[in-house]
Amino acid sequence: MNHDPSKHAGTAASQDVLERLADVIEQRRQGDPDKSYVARLFHKGTDAILKKVGEEATETVMAAKDGDPQKIVYEVADLWFHSMLALARFGLRPADVLAELSRREGLSGLEEFAARKAREREQAERPRHQDPQED
Amino acid sequence: MNHDPSKHAGTAASQDVLERLADVIEQRRQGDPDKSYVARLFHKGTDAILKKVGEEATETVMAAKDGDPQKIVYEVADLWFHSMLALARFGLRPADVLAELSRREGLSGLEEFAARKAREREQAERPRHQDPQED
Amino acid sequence: MNHDPSKHAGTAASQDVLERLADVIEQRRQGDPDKSYVARLFHKGTDAILKKVGEEATETVMAAKDGDPQKIVYEVADLWFHSMLALARFGLRPADVLAELSRREGLSGLEEFAARKAREREQAERPRHQDPQED
Amino acid sequence: MNHDPSKHAGTAASQDVLERLADVIEQRRQGDPDKSYVARLFHKGTDAILKKVGEEATETVMAAKDGDPQKIVYEVADLWFHSMLALARFGLRPADVLAELSRREGLSGLEEFAARKAREREQAERPRHQDPQED
Repeated sequence: MNHDPSKHAGTAASQDVLERLADVIEQRRQGDPDKSYVARLFHKGTDAILKKVGEEATETVMAAKDGDPQKIVYEVADLWFHSMLALARFGLRPADVLAELSRREGLSGLEEFAARKAREREQAERPRHQDPQED
Repeated sequence: MNHDPSKHAGTAASQDVLERLADVIEQRRQGDPDKSYVARLFHKGTDAILKKVGEEATETVMAAKDGDPQKIVYEVADLWFHSMLALARFGLRPADVLAELSRREGLSGLEEFAARKAREREQAERPRHQDPQED
Repeated sequence: MNHDPSKHAGTAASQDVLERLADVIEQRRQGDPDKSYVARLFHKGTDAILKKVGEEATETVMAAKDGDPQKIVYEVADLWFHSMLALARFGLRPADVLAELSRREGLSGLEEFAARKAREREQAERPRHQDPQED
Repeated sequence: MNHDPSKHAGTAASQDVLERLADVIEQRRQGDPDKSYVARLFHKGTDAILKKVGEEATETVMAAKDGDPQKIVYEVADLWFHSMLALARFGLRPADVLAELSRREGLSGLEEFAARKAREREQAERPRHQDPQED
C-alpha cells in the first residue's frame, strides 16, 4: 500500500481510516500477547474474537436503549473494531465490507472504488482468506 | 494504494462510502415504509433497529464459525449497515465512530480528518443527537 | 415456598414443565413445516434456530432495559424456548442443563435428581447427541 | 422453603431445580461482592448482568456451531443462569417464565401449576417487580 499523502491532502476518506486501522491490526496481531490486546485476542483464537463481537453488539443495544449518544458512538466503535478483528482473522479487509455495502446500496462510483481496492489488494503480496490458525 | 485525485476530483463519491451511505439512510428513513426497508425499520422504532443489530452480530459469528469469507463479508456488511441505522436514529454519523476509532488507536492524521468531518457536520443544518421520535 | 404434595401427587403434569415442553418439541419437529413453527425452524436448519437464540437474547436485554416485568418474562420464555430447540437439535434435554446447573451450584438433592433423570433418559430408546441432519 | 423430601421422593421436578437455584441467587445477591460472583454482578448493576446474557447467547451459538454437546449444555446452563439473574434483578422468578411457557404451549396441567406457584409467590412477603437499584 503506497500512501502518497500529497495526492489526497485534505481528502482523507472514511475508508482510509478503516484501511489504516486494518494495517495497525495486521501489525499488532503478530505482537506480544502480554503487551498487545489485539495479539492477545488472536492468540486466544477465533472464538475469543467472536465472543467480543457478540458482547459489543449487546453493549451497543444497551447504549442505544439509554439514548446516550457518546456511549453509542463508543460501543459502535468497539463493535466495528472487533468485527475488523474477525475480518482480519480470515484475511479480509474493511474494503471488502465497503465494497459489499456499495454494491447493494447501488452507490454509483462507490462500486468502482471498492472493486479497484479489491483488485489492488488481490495483487498485493498478502495471502487472502487464509485459514486462521485455530488454537 | 494509489490515489489519483483527478479521478475523484470533486467526486466525494469515491471517498466516503460510509458518509454517502449515511446520506442515503437519511433520505430513505423519511420514505414510504411500504417501499423502503430503511423507512420500515425506522417506522417500527428503535427496538426493531436494535434487534437487527443483535441478529446480524449473531449471523456474523455463525458465518465466521463456518469460515466462509464471502458470508463473513456479507454479514459484517449487514452488521455495519444496521449499526449505521442505530447511529442515524440518534443523529449520529459514521464519522463519529471513525473519530472515536482514530482517537483510541492514535492514528496520526486520522484524528484531524475525523475532527474536521465532525466540525463540518456541526456547521451543517441538521440538528445532531436529537431524540429519536419513538413510536 | 410451601409445597403441598397432595396437590400434585402423581401428576407428572405439574412437575416437569421443561421436560414436557421438550417432549412437545420432539413431536413437533417431525411435523409439517407449513403448520408448525418448530417444524419450520428445524426444517430451515441449525442456523435458523441459533439466529433465534441470538435474537431473543437481544430482546431480553431490551425488555430489561425498559424495566418491563411482563416483557422480560415473555422474552426470557422465548429465549429458553429457542435454546431448548438448540438442545433438541443435538439430542439434548433440559434435564442436561438442570444437571449442569445443579452440579455447579452444589444444590444438594438436585444433583441426584438430575443424575437420575439423565440415567432414565439414557435407558430410553431415543439415541442421544445424534448429529443434527443439516440441510 | 419447606421441602418435605418424603412427600415427593423421586418426583423432584425441573421447576424445583430452578426455584431452588433462584433462592440461592436471592441469598447470594446480598452477599460480599469480593466473595460472590452473583453479588459482584448485582453490585455492578443491571447492564453487567445483561451483558452476560448477550455474551452467553453468543457462546451458546458458538458451541452449537462446534456441534459439541457438552459445551452446548455448559453454555445453555450459563445462559439460563444469567437470565435468572436478570429475572431476579426485577423481582421475577423462573416460575414466571415456566408459567408463560406453559400458557403459550397449552400444556394442560402446567398452566394450573404455574398459576398456583405465581399466586403463592404473590402472597409471600417479598416485594415483586421492584425497581432494581441502578448504580
